Amino acid sequence: MVIKALLFDVFGTVVDWRTSITREVAAFGQRHRVTADWESFADNWREGYSSGMAQVNDGEVEWRNVDRIHRERLDLLLAAHGFPKIAEYELDQLNRAWHRLDAWPDAVEGLLRLKSDFVISTLSNGHLGLLVNMAKQASLPWDCVLSSELSGRYKPDLAVYRYAARILDLSAEEVMMVAAHVFDVEAAAQAGLRTAFVSRPLEYGNARAAEVAPAGRFDIEATDFNDLANQLGCA
Amino acid sequence: MVIKALLFDVFGTVVDWRTSITREVAAFGQRHRVTADWESFADNWREGYSSGMAQVNDGEVEWRNVDRIHRERLDLLLAAHGFPKIAEYELDQLNRAWHRLDAWPDAVEGLLRLKSDFVISTLSNGHLGLLVNMAKQASLPWDCVLSSELSGRYKPDLAVYRYAARILDLSAEEVMMVAAHVFDVEAAAQAGLRTAFVSRPLEYGNARAAEVAPAGRFDIEATDFNDLANQLGCA
Repeated sequence: MVIKALLFDVFGTVVDWRTSITREVAAFGQRHRVTADWESFADNWREGYSSGMAQVNDGEVEWRNVDRIHRERLDLLLAAHGFPKIAEYELDQLNRAWHRLDAWPDAVEGLLRLKSDFVISTLSNGHLGLLVNMAKQASLPWDCVLSSELSGRYKPDLAVYRYAARILDLSAEEVMMVAAHVFDVEAAAQAGLRTAFVSRPLEYGNARAAEVAPAGRFDIEATDFNDLANQLGCA
Repeated sequence: MVIKALLFDVFGTVVDWRTSITREVAAFGQRHRVTADWESFADNWREGYSSGMAQVNDGEVEWRNVDRIHRERLDLLLAAHGFPKIAEYELDQLNRAWHRLDAWPDAVEGLLRLKSDFVISTLSNGHLGLLVNMAKQASLPWDCVLSSELSGRYKPDLAVYRYAARILDLSAEEVMMVAAHVFDVEAAAQAGLRTAFVSRPLEYGNARAAEVAPAGRFDIEATDFNDLANQLGCA
């Protein structure tokens, strides 16, 4: 079966959230005369994301989008770091730093090459509005923007991957999931999709060891999007 | 309230379905040595679309996508025109002519101008897979591809317009519907969206008079996408 579409995880796979978020929170801290380890702050903020999504998938809470999940964690973190009361407008602006993340250096070039041969789409836990803003900001040339939000569940729920293939009017094996996280690629494989693992060893800077794909488990292992394009035979 | 996103009807508004379909059915007829008025054939094929969608909105049938609606009408039309038995593969290829429609001459240039200032998205009754194929074929530079399919109803059901605004994380009045059909723009207005009517006097060639917008009813009336971009202040 020929691969027709590539679905990309976004946070960490396409964009370098940690560098962008660290820069934004550091500037915010400076403005309010608060000092902290801003890389840790960014990592902490990101951690709230997983637990917030797990609550949705476990049925503990109704669907809530990533802006809301980020905002709850941000409020806790700002209080813990002794920030003074901040105007709502400014908090909202900071929370939307997750809409303004820089792409990894190879991402746009690699996506443009892949786009010549395949439909390229997001399949992110970020909500659609966030992904559309991010694509404009970072010049990500998606053919289509898909989000977990459309299926009302978060990855790695298998319903998310199945919904994406179905809404593209493709069978699961015509679709390849591309991600830098083993749990995401594993779940896509369970849902019947083809799989590509792309390493992003700098996702967590020096704070965490790079994720490594289990040997031979995925259809493709690539070092970046240009390498993925090479392995898929793109010009 | 500032407009942030423009939603575009596609068939007739962005692409010239009649010229493209007429060309494809004429070539198909020639290959099978059948003669007919191919413009009428195209118009007839298109008419099946409205009744097929109305059946869904009226609850007479389950959701079915536009490929399926087109195919049912195509089978009837081919039989009525005395075509011999055709291979399934070839029928499917012909049915997908609706994925390969040419854009109106001003469309891509106008969309690129509008894209600098707004999120530009489809909001079509075509299903998502069809719209993605069409965008690649016709170089339509969408930020996002939205379809009635996502809400399980067809335009002009108001749920379609409301869903689109909500999934973009915008309020209805931050979104403008752009279409060449009064019924579509009227429904968008009822759903609280801003509205732009673009005239496409050649949609039905000489077979039908051009649609005219009721005077003063819509926020913008434009002669094409460049005029729309001018009126919205785009560079």
